[in-house]
Amino acid sequence: MKVSVIGATGYTGAELVKILLGHPGVELGSITSQSFAGKKISEVYPYLDTDLILEEIDLDRISSESILVFVALPHSASMEVVGKLCSKGKKVIDLSADFRLTDPGIYEKWYKATHTRKELLKEAVYGLPEIYGERIRGASLVANPGCYPTSIILALAPLIQNEIIEEEGIIIDAKSGVSGAGRKLTLNTHYPEINESLYPYQVEGHRHIPEMEQELSKMAGKKINITFVPHLVPLNRGIISTCYATLRSSFKKEDIFAFYKDFYEDAPFVQILSPGEFPHIKDVIYSNRCRIGIAINNDLRRIIVISSLDNLVKGASGQAVQNMNLMLGLDEKMGLL
Amino acid sequence: MKVSVIGATGYTGAELVKILLGHPGVELGSITSQSFAGKKISEVYPYLDTDLILEEIDLDRISSESILVFVALPHSASMEVVGKLCSKGKKVIDLSADFRLTDPGIYEKWYKATHTRKELLKEAVYGLPEIYGERIRGASLVANPGCYPTSIILALAPLIQNEIIEEEGIIIDAKSGVSGAGRKLTLNTHYPEINESLYPYQVEGHRHIPEMEQELSKMAGKKINITFVPHLVPLNRGIISTCYATLRSSFKKEDIFAFYKDFYEDAPFVQILSPGEFPHIKDVIYSNRCRIGIAINNDLRRIIVISSLDNLVKGASGQAVQNMNLMLGLDEKMGLL
Amino acid sequence: MKVSVIGATGYTGAELVKILLGHPGVELGSITSQSFAGKKISEVYPYLDTDLILEEIDLDRISSESILVFVALPHSASMEVVGKLCSKGKKVIDLSADFRLTDPGIYEKWYKATHTRKELLKEAVYGLPEIYGERIRGASLVANPGCYPTSIILALAPLIQNEIIEEEGIIIDAKSGVSGAGRKLTLNTHYPEINESLYPYQVEGHRHIPEMEQELSKMAGKKINITFVPHLVPLNRGIISTCYATLRSSFKKEDIFAFYKDFYEDAPFVQILSPGEFPHIKDVIYSNRCRIGIAINNDLRRIIVISSLDNLVKGASGQAVQNMNLMLGLDEKMGLL
Amino acid sequence: MKVSVIGATGYTGAELVKILLGHPGVELGSITSQSFAGKKISEVYPYLDTDLILEEIDLDRISSESILVFVALPHSASMEVVGKLCSKGKKVIDLSADFRLTDPGIYEKWYKATHTRKELLKEAVYGLPEIYGERIRGASLVANPGCYPTSIILALAPLIQNEIIEEEGIIIDAKSGVSGAGRKLTLNTHYPEINESLYPYQVEGHRHIPEMEQELSKMAGKKINITFVPHLVPLNRGIISTCYATLRSSFKKEDIFAFYKDFYEDAPFVQILSPGEFPHIKDVIYSNRCRIGIAINNDLRRIIVISSLDNLVKGASGQAVQNMNLMLGLDEKMGLL
Repeated sequence: MKVSVIGATGYTGAELVKILLGHPGVELGSITSQSFAGKKISEVYPYLDTDLILEEIDLDRISSESILVFVALPHSASMEVVGKLCSKGKKVIDLSADFRLTDPGIYEKWYKATHTRKELLKEAVYGLPEIYGERIRGASLVANPGCYPTSIILALAPLIQNEIIEEEGIIIDAKSGVSGAGRKLTLNTHYPEINESLYPYQVEGHRHIPEMEQELSKMAGKKINITFVPHLVPLNRGIISTCYATLRSSFKKEDIFAFYKDFYEDAPFVQILSPGEFPHIKDVIYSNRCRIGIAINNDLRRIIVISSLDNLVKGASGQAVQNMNLMLGLDEKMGLL
Repeated sequence: MKVSVIGATGYTGAELVKILLGHPGVELGSITSQSFAGKKISEVYPYLDTDLILEEIDLDRISSESILVFVALPHSASMEVVGKLCSKGKKVIDLSADFRLTDPGIYEKWYKATHTRKELLKEAVYGLPEIYGERIRGASLVANPGCYPTSIILALAPLIQNEIIEEEGIIIDAKSGVSGAGRKLTLNTHYPEINESLYPYQVEGHRHIPEMEQELSKMAGKKINITFVPHLVPLNRGIISTCYATLRSSFKKEDIFAFYKDFYEDAPFVQILSPGEFPHIKDVIYSNRCRIGIAINNDLRRIIVISSLDNLVKGASGQAVQNMNLMLGLDEKMGLL
Repeated sequence: MKVSVIGATGYTGAELVKILLGHPGVELGSITSQSFAGKKISEVYPYLDTDLILEEIDLDRISSESILVFVALPHSASMEVVGKLCSKGKKVIDLSADFRLTDPGIYEKWYKATHTRKELLKEAVYGLPEIYGERIRGASLVANPGCYPTSIILALAPLIQNEIIEEEGIIIDAKSGVSGAGRKLTLNTHYPEINESLYPYQVEGHRHIPEMEQELSKMAGKKINITFVPHLVPLNRGIISTCYATLRSSFKKEDIFAFYKDFYEDAPFVQILSPGEFPHIKDVIYSNRCRIGIAINNDLRRIIVISSLDNLVKGASGQAVQNMNLMLGLDEKMGLL
Repeated sequence: MKVSVIGATGYTGAELVKILLGHPGVELGSITSQSFAGKKISEVYPYLDTDLILEEIDLDRISSESILVFVALPHSASMEVVGKLCSKGKKVIDLSADFRLTDPGIYEKWYKATHTRKELLKEAVYGLPEIYGERIRGASLVANPGCYPTSIILALAPLIQNEIIEEEGIIIDAKSGVSGAGRKLTLNTHYPEINESLYPYQVEGHRHIPEMEQELSKMAGKKINITFVPHLVPLNRGIISTCYATLRSSFKKEDIFAFYKDFYEDAPFVQILSPGEFPHIKDVIYSNRCRIGIAINNDLRRIIVISSLDNLVKGASGQAVQNMNLMLGLDEKMGLL
């Protein structure tokens, strides 16, 4: 079974290639790059141990040889490519935001781009396997979630499903490594500007907010608004999302932990930590795991859920491969750590 | 005017020595260390450009030569030394937590130690010059605040004083550099364990909580409870505290910024950023400044206040020198950046 | 085929467990730890996705179930354990320095310990597969090389074998990440002491010198003395060794590169970079590869060879698994990136 | 006494402004910037506590108000500005390379630019105060040395002056923090590319080589060629230069240390470490000091001299201020740590 990667030289594209090279169930077909077409990908990323050559995008060729195509293009550059691949009957996993938001108006407001493939929004399945596993198995188009939304929806889903927290007053304080900002050069990610520093960004509105609100609202059956502040921290990989919510009433600690264990019973990549334990980024990087710790303070009706993952793996390319595994009928864990 | 430092070889003690060596208004008398007595401090910290020799603690000698003494000993080791210096009529600035909490019962609960100098708790002034400047000028014993409390009280004071936020639901998510954990060797601060990592700690209760609650409650005139989660991040110096609170009603952005500007009009080290700007740690390290950014979302009745400072300077030794300047009638900014 | 790891909770032991868990040709039998016996290794290293429990050392049990045993104990603690396993007829790979030096007098001088298993020194094969591949295949005891020696012998071997450089005047300036210093707490590896710093250490004599001199001298057929200065740099993993030597005469660039390509023709993990290219640590970490760049200045009769590897993989545990693959008749690359 | 800074918003320009703001002997006049003219410099570098506004370059105005002008423009952009200021009779300190090389042919070869102010090359004094202090006092144009040359010439000068080492075979392996590469965005200094990495660069020829060879040759009275390999390491500030040379004959350790102590007897910023001690970058950053450690191996006729400094301070702006102090008849240490 051959799969291809369109947009292989961003950080998520390269991580995807790395995972797929080691995947025992599929073979890597074409990999494309606008900037580096004609070069070996190992010239761009020497850690990739392959002779594969980067190509221009040729959708006919890619379609004819691939059973499934990953599209790892920037937002708004992705939608047309995805549309054409879908027309050709290919299974597609889109790592951009273009098919995550079901309401194109919200997409256009946050991403400042016109959506030209609205007809596909209904077909696209939000690619969070722990929530939508069944639908993903049968999907032809999967919208791979953002890194922050993955960490946060996994943290909050059991609370919302079990109606443990109030819909109001959810606050999420997230911290991400710098690879999350991509490979594009900016002053804020120039080494001497972020090393030994740390800063909040997009405090007045980050584009992952509508994605998280959409998914959490769907679960709750009513509109949920969240406060979300991301911070960039001086490390390469990893996210810690510290989520604060208000308990509807007093809960026994054991019950809360039991809700989480139940909810993720069949999720091979989610680990609920023991009471009193909380995640460290070092324990999740280079793996597809999401580790979650929970603290409860009934006096203040406060619950704190802290989740961690590798933004390039469970937050992007590892999750994309997990989705691929489901779509191709392979073992969910195949090729993933 | 000679001043002395008891406990000069921890990170805060050494930073204090560094600042005092460059201070034009005082001369450094004795510096003490249990572990390194007899050595030059420049052997322990080669960046200190001085021939001063570390001594055993000799309170008689120190008292006779010093107009003011800084005590930078660990919690509970400090109280007796402070007590004796006060008995000898010396002005004292204590950098430990021993005299910060006015209720000895709360101290004993959080610090697991019996308070043997309760009689001094009433005399001790909480050393946050932006709030208690007048009292500090006349104080003989100043309890220098903790690093997190400094960043957080400065962030929230204008909101509480002006009754802008509700007392309930205050959430603080703080991130600190590793020097905040001190020079004591621990696995969690061993380089390969924290580099490329990041973790929350003391999620179920950090000792700075009672200190912050005491000060915020005093301002509010009623009991305030907070949720506080600190995180350790891989950088040497600096704190970012992201504070979330609930607005009592809708407020104009300009009014909120005006409240802050007014409140800190005479505070030379507090900088209120323009709307849309938020602090970066790199802009405060090695200085005594606290930079504060503010975001308001009236739809969610949410206010976010983000403050940053250097935990070793404004969060400890710089603030101690600022207190000293006030106590000795010097210019508040003398010797500080 | 079951293999076991004695000393599984140091950084190299844990890395070894990680590689072996993903190895398709062997099964992990016992893993031992003095400090953590009885605990799951995933409690000590949560990134290890296994339920294996750490045991006390029980050589009878380990021998009966294992075809090969890795010993990852500290220097001088290793020799007796290795000796007993050899007596029981087990194949052994020792990651300590105890069997690297063929002359026990030199061992005793540099490691300040009496060698109690001198009789095994003749049997032990120095485990550098690119040089001793054939002997390793038939070995029952392999002494896994040090991290610096691996990087440096691989850099210099083609020059010495082809008599390109003078034996005198070889200088090696090496830079290592902090995991190379192990998990033991020391002030020099306390985060705030090494972050934003960098320092040379053991400038007047590092214990890897006799190991390198032994191997280089063996190749040259005469005594070679080297100058070697290691530096600790603030990153977790990786070594860059910059080697300077004097050319015997003028050489064509192409010829030098051809010597290297020939020498490593069958070495799957050594990559000779193109002229003008030099290694970056980021390209080798988490892999078993050694990347080597070369510069020649005939005017000064100077050759510079720069090699890079991951100290925990090709510099320790990956190389140990490469040796295991040879000893067990498996594909040399199996289970390795 | 007013001084001005042309080119104030690169890393060295900003560091210069920082030092001058705290300098008790001079007042800062104009500061200029092409990219940010009209803005406060504190908007570009919030750590600078000043209301000074960046201006366009107006040489008439700058000349009329300033006794001395620092030019911190890029190479080849500097020479014309310097030339005009010299014509107006101003004292000038040029932080670029434009006046460091006395032979314009060598300049043009290495900097790929025509030298249009050759007539000033004879007048320009190489601004290394420990060597040329007397000439600097009387100079009207000082060419401030490069960061690597400062660290290396200070390391080697006592050996060359005392004819301790051979002129051939000098090898220098240098490691620099990333601020040395400037504020210009490049992929190699993009955070995720250099963090957790380390790489040699310009291995086949760095532009500081002719500068070092010129100065060392002048001292030796004969042509000296060196081998020089710089490496970029993941930290913000600081250089370690590890210099290897061949002793002409056996020397007593004490004698070598005595030569160094003598040589730097009157140099307030050079510290010769005790035998067995070697510099750490953390001990020199944010100061104007250069710390030097020495190892001798008479068996191999090898001497190793390791020097460290802050590339932005002693390697650039601090040294420029040290030069200014001499040129203006102020105390050499004024305003410097």
